Amino acid sequence: MAALKPIRPGDTIGIVAPASPFEKAKFEFGLKFLEDRGFRLSVPEEVFQRDGYLAGSDAQRARLINQMFADSNIHAVWAARGGYGTLRILPLIDFSTICANPKPFVGSSDITALLTALHGRCRMPVFHGPMIISFAEADEATRGAALRIFESGGRWQLRAAACRGIRPGRASAEVTGGNLTTLSHLIGTPFEPDFNDRLLFIEDIGEATYRIDRMLSQMKLAGRLGRVKGVIMGNFTDCGRLEDIIGVVENIFSEPPVPIIAGIPAGHGPSNVMMPMGVEATLDADEGVLSYHCGFFADT
Amino acid sequence: MAALKPIRPGDTIGIVAPASPFEKAKFEFGLKFLEDRGFRLSVPEEVFQRDGYLAGSDAQRARLINQMFADSNIHAVWAARGGYGTLRILPLIDFSTICANPKPFVGSSDITALLTALHGRCRMPVFHGPMIISFAEADEATRGAALRIFESGGRWQLRAAACRGIRPGRASAEVTGGNLTTLSHLIGTPFEPDFNDRLLFIEDIGEATYRIDRMLSQMKLAGRLGRVKGVIMGNFTDCGRLEDIIGVVENIFSEPPVPIIAGIPAGHGPSNVMMPMGVEATLDADEGVLSYHCGFFADT
Repeated sequence: MAALKPIRPGDTIGIVAPASPFEKAKFEFGLKFLEDRGFRLSVPEEVFQRDGYLAGSDAQRARLINQMFADSNIHAVWAARGGYGTLRILPLIDFSTICANPKPFVGSSDITALLTALHGRCRMPVFHGPMIISFAEADEATRGAALRIFESGGRWQLRAAACRGIRPGRASAEVTGGNLTTLSHLIGTPFEPDFNDRLLFIEDIGEATYRIDRMLSQMKLAGRLGRVKGVIMGNFTDCGRLEDIIGVVENIFSEPPVPIIAGIPAGHGPSNVMMPMGVEATLDADEGVLSYHCGFFADT
Repeated sequence: MAALKPIRPGDTIGIVAPASPFEKAKFEFGLKFLEDRGFRLSVPEEVFQRDGYLAGSDAQRARLINQMFADSNIHAVWAARGGYGTLRILPLIDFSTICANPKPFVGSSDITALLTALHGRCRMPVFHGPMIISFAEADEATRGAALRIFESGGRWQLRAAACRGIRPGRASAEVTGGNLTTLSHLIGTPFEPDFNDRLLFIEDIGEATYRIDRMLSQMKLAGRLGRVKGVIMGNFTDCGRLEDIIGVVENIFSEPPVPIIAGIPAGHGPSNVMMPMGVEATLDADEGVLSYHCGFFADT
C-alpha cells in the first residue's frame, strides 16, 4: 500500500479534466473555494478544451493526468468534472509513473474509472469526493469534509442519513466502487475493479430502477459480486423510488446476505462527502456508519 | 447448424413474455394481425402477469419459454414485448431442450439477450424482428416482412434507406447483435455473444451519443470488437444526431477499417424488418444492402 502525504495550505493542487467540458462559472467558484483555503492551483490551459462531449482529445486529457503525477511540484490532483470520457483514456494512462509518485487524487461520477484503476494498479488510496465544479452547489458538510479529510490523520467516518441499516451486520474490508454505470462499463476491460473481499460503494444519477437492476444483474451473472463483503449505497438521484432500488440491491446481494447500508451522503447531488477508496474500513450496518480507522495517510 | 422449419398458416405460434409487462390493446392488435393471416396462437394466461417492471417472476417467465420450445404442438415462439428482464432469466433457460427442439423465435430490444444466447448455444437461426405489441405501430414494410420471411426459402435482403454505405467494402459472415445496450450488459456473463468473425448489427433507443460511445468503448477495450468483419447500423431512435453516432462507430471500428452500413430499417420505431441472426449474410456497403442467400430454413 502506497502511503500518501496529506496536502496542507501552501501546497499545490493540479487540476485535470479526464472527461467532459464544464461550465466556467462553476469551475471558477471551485478554484476560489480551494484558493481561499490557502492552496495554490495549477490550472493548465488545456483543461478548457472542448471536443463535443469531451474536454479535448483522448491523448491530451491523458497526458495532463500523467504530467500532474510526474511533476514533484504538484501535491494532489483534482478532477474538474465528470460526464463521460475517462474510460476512453485508461489505455493512455502511465500507471508506472503514477505508482512511483502517489499523491491524493479526487473525483467521482465518470472519474470512478480512474479512481478504481489507480487504487487497483498502484495499491494507492484515492478519494471519491466533490469535483471542482461540484463546490458551487455542494452542501456545507461536503465543502467542509473536502479539506478536513487531509487533517484527519486517517480517521474518518461517514454516517448514513437517519441510520439506514438495510441489512444488519458488520464487515471490515477495503472499500471500492463509485458510480454504478461507470463500474458496469468497466466489466470485461483490463481496468475492471476487483470486487472480491471488498466493501462495494455504489451511487448513480438518472438511471431508472430497471437499469440499476440490469447493471447489478450483469455484474452478478458475470460472477463479480459473489465475494462482496458489504454494500454501501450512496445517493441515487433521479433514479426512481429509493425503496425500489433498495429492494433490487437486497435481492442481488441475498446470497450471501451481506450487510447493506443506504443513505451514505456520497455521489451526485449537493452531498458528496469525501470517501477514501482502496483502503480498509468497517461497515457497521447496525449503527449506520462506515468508519476508517487509519491507513490512508502516511504518519507525519 | 440446426435447420428450422418455416411456419405456414395453420401452424401455432406460442407467445412468451421474457421481459416487461405490456399494454393489452397493442398486444391484442398484434395477436389479431397474426390470426388474420391464418396462424393459431397459444397465449398462456401467465404472460399477463405483472411484477413491477417484470412480466411475472423470473422462474415463471423462463418456464414459459422452456415449455413453448418443448411442446411439439408449438411451431414458433414469438416475444410479446421487450423492456427489461431477459438478462435475469438466462440462467433459468433450458438450453438443452431448446437445442433439441429448434423452431423460429422472434424478438428484439431487450430480447436480444435471448436471441444471441439461442444462436450462440444452439447454433440455431433466430429472428430479430417486430414483437407482438410492435405490430400496432409498425410500418407496412415491417408488417409485410414479418411473415413473408417464412415464404422466402432463406433468400432475404435488407436495404439501407438511401443506400448509406458509411465505409465501403464487402464482407460475408454470420450476423449477430441487436440492441446495443442489451449487448453491453451481457459482457462478462456466460451468455455474452461471440463477435469474432461476425457481422455486428447494433441499434438503440433513448441513449445519448456519449452513451453509445461508452458502450462501444467498453466492448473495444474489452477486446471484443477486434475481429468484427463489418458493422450494420439499424435505427438509433432518440439517440441524438445520427451523424454523431456514425462518427463514433467509424472511430471505434477504424482498426481494422471494416465496412459499415447505416440506415438498415431494424430496431426501435415503426420500421423493424425481420433480420435473421446466427446465419451467414453478405454486407455490401457499396450497394447499401445486407443479403442472405439461403441457410436459415431447412429445404422443404
